[in-house]
Amino acid sequence: MRIKYDDLVKVFQDILEGRGVPEEDARLAAENFAKNSADGVYSHGVNRFPRVISYIDQESIHINGKPECEQSFGALERWNGNLGLGNVNAGICMDRAIELAKEYGIGAVALQNTNHWMRGGTYGWQAADAGCIGICWTNTMPNMPPWGAKDSKIGNNPFIMAIPKSDGKHVVVDCAVAQFSYGKIEECRLKGEQLPVPGGFDTLGNITTDPAEIEKTWRVLPIGYWKGSGLSIALDLIGAVLSGGNTVTDIGRKYEDEIGLTQMFIAIDPGKMNTTETTDAVLDMVLQDIKASEPDKEDGSIRYPGEQEYLTRMDNMKHGIPVLDEVWETITALQKI
Amino acid sequence: MRIKYDDLVKVFQDILEGRGVPEEDARLAAENFAKNSADGVYSHGVNRFPRVISYIDQESIHINGKPECEQSFGALERWNGNLGLGNVNAGICMDRAIELAKEYGIGAVALQNTNHWMRGGTYGWQAADAGCIGICWTNTMPNMPPWGAKDSKIGNNPFIMAIPKSDGKHVVVDCAVAQFSYGKIEECRLKGEQLPVPGGFDTLGNITTDPAEIEKTWRVLPIGYWKGSGLSIALDLIGAVLSGGNTVTDIGRKYEDEIGLTQMFIAIDPGKMNTTETTDAVLDMVLQDIKASEPDKEDGSIRYPGEQEYLTRMDNMKHGIPVLDEVWETITALQKI
Repeated sequence: MRIKYDDLVKVFQDILEGRGVPEEDARLAAENFAKNSADGVYSHGVNRFPRVISYIDQESIHINGKPECEQSFGALERWNGNLGLGNVNAGICMDRAIELAKEYGIGAVALQNTNHWMRGGTYGWQAADAGCIGICWTNTMPNMPPWGAKDSKIGNNPFIMAIPKSDGKHVVVDCAVAQFSYGKIEECRLKGEQLPVPGGFDTLGNITTDPAEIEKTWRVLPIGYWKGSGLSIALDLIGAVLSGGNTVTDIGRKYEDEIGLTQMFIAIDPGKMNTTETTDAVLDMVLQDIKASEPDKEDGSIRYPGEQEYLTRMDNMKHGIPVLDEVWETITALQKI
Repeated sequence: MRIKYDDLVKVFQDILEGRGVPEEDARLAAENFAKNSADGVYSHGVNRFPRVISYIDQESIHINGKPECEQSFGALERWNGNLGLGNVNAGICMDRAIELAKEYGIGAVALQNTNHWMRGGTYGWQAADAGCIGICWTNTMPNMPPWGAKDSKIGNNPFIMAIPKSDGKHVVVDCAVAQFSYGKIEECRLKGEQLPVPGGFDTLGNITTDPAEIEKTWRVLPIGYWKGSGLSIALDLIGAVLSGGNTVTDIGRKYEDEIGLTQMFIAIDPGKMNTTETTDAVLDMVLQDIKASEPDKEDGSIRYPGEQEYLTRMDNMKHGIPVLDEVWETITALQKI
């Protein structure tokens, strides 16, 4: 079925408020889940919502935990998420980074003690909607081996970069530093498909595209092999050092779950250097050139990062957001509990 | 042969001054070439030096081009490299980003109209030596196809992140967003070896580890396939929008060579949030945990990013820097021209 964006927000908000989430936070969180779904990232929108409610019910998410600024020095701030709703905390911290960028040209907020932000790309779109370049990342549970190792010690630490375009067709890269998420590997196995490119190691230590083999070892591949391993470590350390929060190592030891995360939000205001027209012209020129590449398949087309999300959003806002029947049943049942 | 660091600096400086490079710039550039060699990155140190001299001789590098600040807003600045020596420009701009970070917590310098910075990692080490987190990148010639395309439209745009440790054993990630450089692919082909992991496409459109096949198409792989393609585009756009400089597209159209590049330098001072002891403790804990991973080979060991460079530097500073006889002949011959 397809459900209208506003209706989705209303149902999410209703359930969250029913759990005691303060009205404003419930609205912000509900909008985030609905936006992620509108952009086609259902895994971190509508499909993920029931799991977040279970985290509220088991008090891993503290519904009255409000983010607060603990330390400030010029354009750099440290915030504590007080284990509140991860997507609410992240939205507030990116807003603050944007404010700092408007004041100083560039601003950074390091956030500790927060929860899963759902889809990182959202905060890139948020910065770009405010006319800013956005760079942000989160750490995670230990879910990937460092290069050369067998056991999971580092995180897949999603990393986001966004560049604004005044017509809203921003360039937004949103990528974990693992080649595939656990969810994607499971999904492929259930469908009986191979991964499109190698995603991990089999039990013999060979790199493979077979999801069932990877599930036996959970030795997933970092993007670029040793490169993604290094990027993962650096992202984790920068966030932890600046926020005073948990490293991937800490999260594994303390929680054995994706709780008490550390995140970074950096915004840069290109309007301090350029007119909007100039920025738009740079993006137009580069994106046109890239899209004019020769496709490797006869009917192929080249997409820039963020293009698909924008197109999906336009379609979903017009025709409603696709929701699986069983997911919708689970969600509406939550209204009654 | 092995040549002492100071002797290498002296010879480089001598040759540069002989070409008319001002004394201070010649010293900075010479130190950069020698440092890259000391850290074991010979490809962007001693081995690259003759090529840089040829760029000076053909006036692609303007020896009197001095970097200057063109625009400033708080913690964000735009500089023009005036086509001067790339490694001198980059060092000056990272120094300025560090100054801004000391003043505002975080600082960024966008540099346009510069030349090849040699090894990007150097500027990460530079920030970390000043007690700062360093994040920097450069764009390049179009040398990689965007994901889904056959023709090279995007750059391999090296990306660097560094985190300081007070004993100088910093964590420094330095990675191009292509899996392998053209140089590495050529080196493997000459040695008759396969690449250690897939690096590009063969003429049939299949992903391969065969360097000779990749050289037929020059369709090299981005790290993480579509992910590295997206990262490449975002890095290029951020630098170009903030600096007002050339995009990868522009560089291909204007120069058909690695000239007139755009670079970003971001520094963050963790000392505004933490004591040095606290930062050190976070790094120690995480790096110990990572190094305690179970190796995938019997005699394997897990290295953190930057560890090998540090060890190589210690050895090379003690025993001299290895230089190939024929490279040394070429360099000393430059003294006489």
